[in-house]
Amino acid sequence: MSETKNSGLKIVVVGASAAGLRAAARAKRLMPESLITVIDKGKIISYGACGLPYYLSGDIESTRALMETSWGTLRNTEFFEKVKGLDMRIQTTVTSVDIENKSISLINKITGNEENLQFDKLVLATGATPIMLSGISADHQRISTFKTVEDAVKWRKKLETGQIERIAIIGSGFIGIELAEAFTSMWDVKVDLIEEKNRILPQMLDADMSFLIEKHLKKQGVQLHKNCSVTAINDIPDGLEIVANNKTIKTGYAIVAIGVRPQVELARQMGLKIGKCGGITVDRNLTTSHPDVYAAGDCIEVEYFHGKKVVIPLGSLANKQGRAVGDQLTGRKTEFKKVVGSACVKVFDYNVASTGLTETMAAQYGIPTRSVRGTFNDLAHYYPEDKNIFLKLIYNPDTRQILGLQAAGEGDVVKRVDVLGNLLMNEGYLEDLLDSEFAYSPPYASALDPLYMLGAAALNQEEGIVSANYAESPDNALVLDVRTPDEAKNYPLENTMHIPYEKLRKRVNELAKNEAIRIICSRGTRSAEATRWFVEAGHKNVAYAGGGWFMLNKESGSQL
Amino acid sequence: MSETKNSGLKIVVVGASAAGLRAAARAKRLMPESLITVIDKGKIISYGACGLPYYLSGDIESTRALMETSWGTLRNTEFFEKVKGLDMRIQTTVTSVDIENKSISLINKITGNEENLQFDKLVLATGATPIMLSGISADHQRISTFKTVEDAVKWRKKLETGQIERIAIIGSGFIGIELAEAFTSMWDVKVDLIEEKNRILPQMLDADMSFLIEKHLKKQGVQLHKNCSVTAINDIPDGLEIVANNKTIKTGYAIVAIGVRPQVELARQMGLKIGKCGGITVDRNLTTSHPDVYAAGDCIEVEYFHGKKVVIPLGSLANKQGRAVGDQLTGRKTEFKKVVGSACVKVFDYNVASTGLTETMAAQYGIPTRSVRGTFNDLAHYYPEDKNIFLKLIYNPDTRQILGLQAAGEGDVVKRVDVLGNLLMNEGYLEDLLDSEFAYSPPYASALDPLYMLGAAALNQEEGIVSANYAESPDNALVLDVRTPDEAKNYPLENTMHIPYEKLRKRVNELAKNEAIRIICSRGTRSAEATRWFVEAGHKNVAYAGGGWFMLNKESGSQL
Repeated sequence: MSETKNSGLKIVVVGASAAGLRAAARAKRLMPESLITVIDKGKIISYGACGLPYYLSGDIESTRALMETSWGTLRNTEFFEKVKGLDMRIQTTVTSVDIENKSISLINKITGNEENLQFDKLVLATGATPIMLSGISADHQRISTFKTVEDAVKWRKKLETGQIERIAIIGSGFIGIELAEAFTSMWDVKVDLIEEKNRILPQMLDADMSFLIEKHLKKQGVQLHKNCSVTAINDIPDGLEIVANNKTIKTGYAIVAIGVRPQVELARQMGLKIGKCGGITVDRNLTTSHPDVYAAGDCIEVEYFHGKKVVIPLGSLANKQGRAVGDQLTGRKTEFKKVVGSACVKVFDYNVASTGLTETMAAQYGIPTRSVRGTFNDLAHYYPEDKNIFLKLIYNPDTRQILGLQAAGEGDVVKRVDVLGNLLMNEGYLEDLLDSEFAYSPPYASALDPLYMLGAAALNQEEGIVSANYAESPDNALVLDVRTPDEAKNYPLENTMHIPYEKLRKRVNELAKNEAIRIICSRGTRSAEATRWFVEAGHKNVAYAGGGWFMLNKESGSQL
Repeated sequence: MSETKNSGLKIVVVGASAAGLRAAARAKRLMPESLITVIDKGKIISYGACGLPYYLSGDIESTRALMETSWGTLRNTEFFEKVKGLDMRIQTTVTSVDIENKSISLINKITGNEENLQFDKLVLATGATPIMLSGISADHQRISTFKTVEDAVKWRKKLETGQIERIAIIGSGFIGIELAEAFTSMWDVKVDLIEEKNRILPQMLDADMSFLIEKHLKKQGVQLHKNCSVTAINDIPDGLEIVANNKTIKTGYAIVAIGVRPQVELARQMGLKIGKCGGITVDRNLTTSHPDVYAAGDCIEVEYFHGKKVVIPLGSLANKQGRAVGDQLTGRKTEFKKVVGSACVKVFDYNVASTGLTETMAAQYGIPTRSVRGTFNDLAHYYPEDKNIFLKLIYNPDTRQILGLQAAGEGDVVKRVDVLGNLLMNEGYLEDLLDSEFAYSPPYASALDPLYMLGAAALNQEEGIVSANYAESPDNALVLDVRTPDEAKNYPLENTMHIPYEKLRKRVNELAKNEAIRIICSRGTRSAEATRWFVEAGHKNVAYAGGGWFMLNKESGSQL
């Protein structure tokens, strides 16, 4: 059988997290006579790192849950040795690799024992290290990054003993946002969330979508500081003084969550090729620049669906890559082709998800974009549990290729991102959204899914039927509010003309043909139709607000 | 502009439900100078028919909610005339169509007024009629079908006045199941659910998956009668006696929900081509056999993704088809290519969804199938709100093309069906599941999505790594239970050998190589790995139970 032809192969895997252990276990399963050694510098291996914020929040009672299989067995060294048949070396670091002679030197951090292993194939799954602000000691009692079980235990202990009244979270990516929720919702700690960019979740969202999450965070009591670049953190009595470009924030503690850096020192020492984004270069077989060395997980660069290389440290990708390397070690041809970057994060009562490129990212790559936005019912609008979801679809106007989706709200946004992400993976076009099919029943969806509606809106825009180009309104544009009288009264919009949609059809001629008109309703459905009426009546400068009043950024005036 | 070149076009649409109204409104929007008349025999138009079971259950307070837009405006004749610009004729039937002279004759059922209209294009959106058992009067006081607002109002009135203690639902498709829940959960009515096939939801599920829903229905108190073909319903004092092939059931009332029939009388009178499944034949432009007549919605036959024609009366499809016809009427080329049949239904606390072909359907089409099944965590297994979901993936073993997915459980099954349905739409293969990407965070998913895991399991099966062919076990097979001692004690399995997975690796040699071994755990993960160990040790007849103990059909012995 093909899977046993490599029996007796000696494999060394560096890193006992998702990618490394999955590669090792898969290879051992397929080649039981191989000898597979897994090395990790840590003591606790194979823990659900993504669950640590939920341990901190108290949603998860004990860290043990994060180290167990789904049936309750502890995934410790003994488990991987006895059950998975791996040769484990924990609390052990690699001192050097002689790639020519296929030999690796190790030292046990506790015993000091040194060891040399021969290997036929090497796998680097060295992960990524959280980035600390320069000048802050790793041992600082009030400041740390947040990555390990030990980090989580330390902070939770402080919380349980009531030591923390106020904390600054520096960085508003996934981890920063999850920590902001954990400290606030369960422990009632006052959180200052500090972000140097003009928006939170900057890797996932453009500013218009971030704005919706920011509103929600503020409602939950999180103090948000955007465009705020930390230059120093000073110790003061009983706390810290965070000095930024535009303000100084006094707080008790600080967690730095400004991102991670691929851990590539070993790869560099071995002379392997490192990419421009700082990750180990691999091909679709996850082979590095040396044919007998594979790499997987947070330490590598992968190909984004549009062809550029990126570093995307996500557990979902690390697991897939690990299995692919396991196959490759046996001679199978399983490839890891590309990523679309689908991701999601819980922000209090909001679900937030995105996939593909944001408009901000696309601009950096020089890819032209246009977008459509909408506020949609998650379920049939008459079904009691229906909630709003806010979506933004991004596409290339030259080719109509879909580029990305951003989604937020109390309803199910992850479903839409997962469908769209897999469409991106298959190079989907706007027209494909009209072909897309969704299971429908009132408790689960509306008859036409938001993704279908967004595809239709984008095609309407591209075919000149209507324009959703509301954001580029001239200052003197007439803003026409077509909501019902009740909506207009309960959620007033200033400086608008109000004609309800139900009455508008006959009144289109009341407005001058040369007037710039911007139309708004609650979600974007009525205003799109009204826009069409004006276009048909000969108006040349009329557009609607996709997403409507619900997505309106009232703080920044007419800009959506 | 291209969209106005057909101004002045006269269009008649027969049927004012999803497909007809969407076609009419879209066409009018794009060609405001066209004259579009919509005819419907009913008084109430454009209601959310799929919501009627939830009005019956009390989840929705009033039927008005089903007739409103999402912003609260009633979608009545006046709305479609004043706002949408359509020419409405309700309570009006078509007496004849002279297709040669493009003329249609109508009669108003209330006033008796007759009318002749000329048209350039005709749209048939005549829908489908629920099938009644033969010999039952449409006016029977205790028996009806369930389709209209009037039906729902009548039954709810009976419920509110306490007239119903016991009811028989004949047919266990979507409607039958939704009604069973509505009568049981809110009104505490004793329900006999009668199905002539060997399984409930027979269009959606194979027997092994149906079994899981049946268990759940029974737990909720629904009395299930399978393989039960009703031959007569007799009136008895204060109730009904339902006579079936194998039993007689006494009850108070009965609703017949055995399916619908495309309403094609008008099309037939006009000499249009009717397909083998009884629906109007259309091409991808939704044109009938006459080039000026379009058809859309429940009355047509559509192409299934594998090329056969089917009638699939789903609101989601009717809406898509309606918009496509609207485009076609303006000369646009929007096609309705094919369907994959994605559908979902709520069954008390279970979410049930499916897409593509069941194994039963595939067998009828002569398409070979193989399947893999699994019990999965919906979320990260350590996340508190995690629930189990049960999945079955069906594929063609000759080509590895994916054919369908069936899913049930308290977790999110609709997401998986929607992703897989759209993969089917793009002719997906098992390998595509390994490329699929899913947004991951503990509150939303596990690091490797169940669809990825099922794809991997299917490929493992096809490559001879392990076999999940548990169902075809010989009677004398040794059943090896590899669960933990606690699991084995709390949820005992009879006539098995028990060796926990954690201890098994070293004990594989204890079993004879020629013994037929079937391995079971709780979900199918451990048993799959254990199967691999036996295969590697030289065993030739060993397989695992995909889905594990959770999906085990204990009533039928070892058959899963």
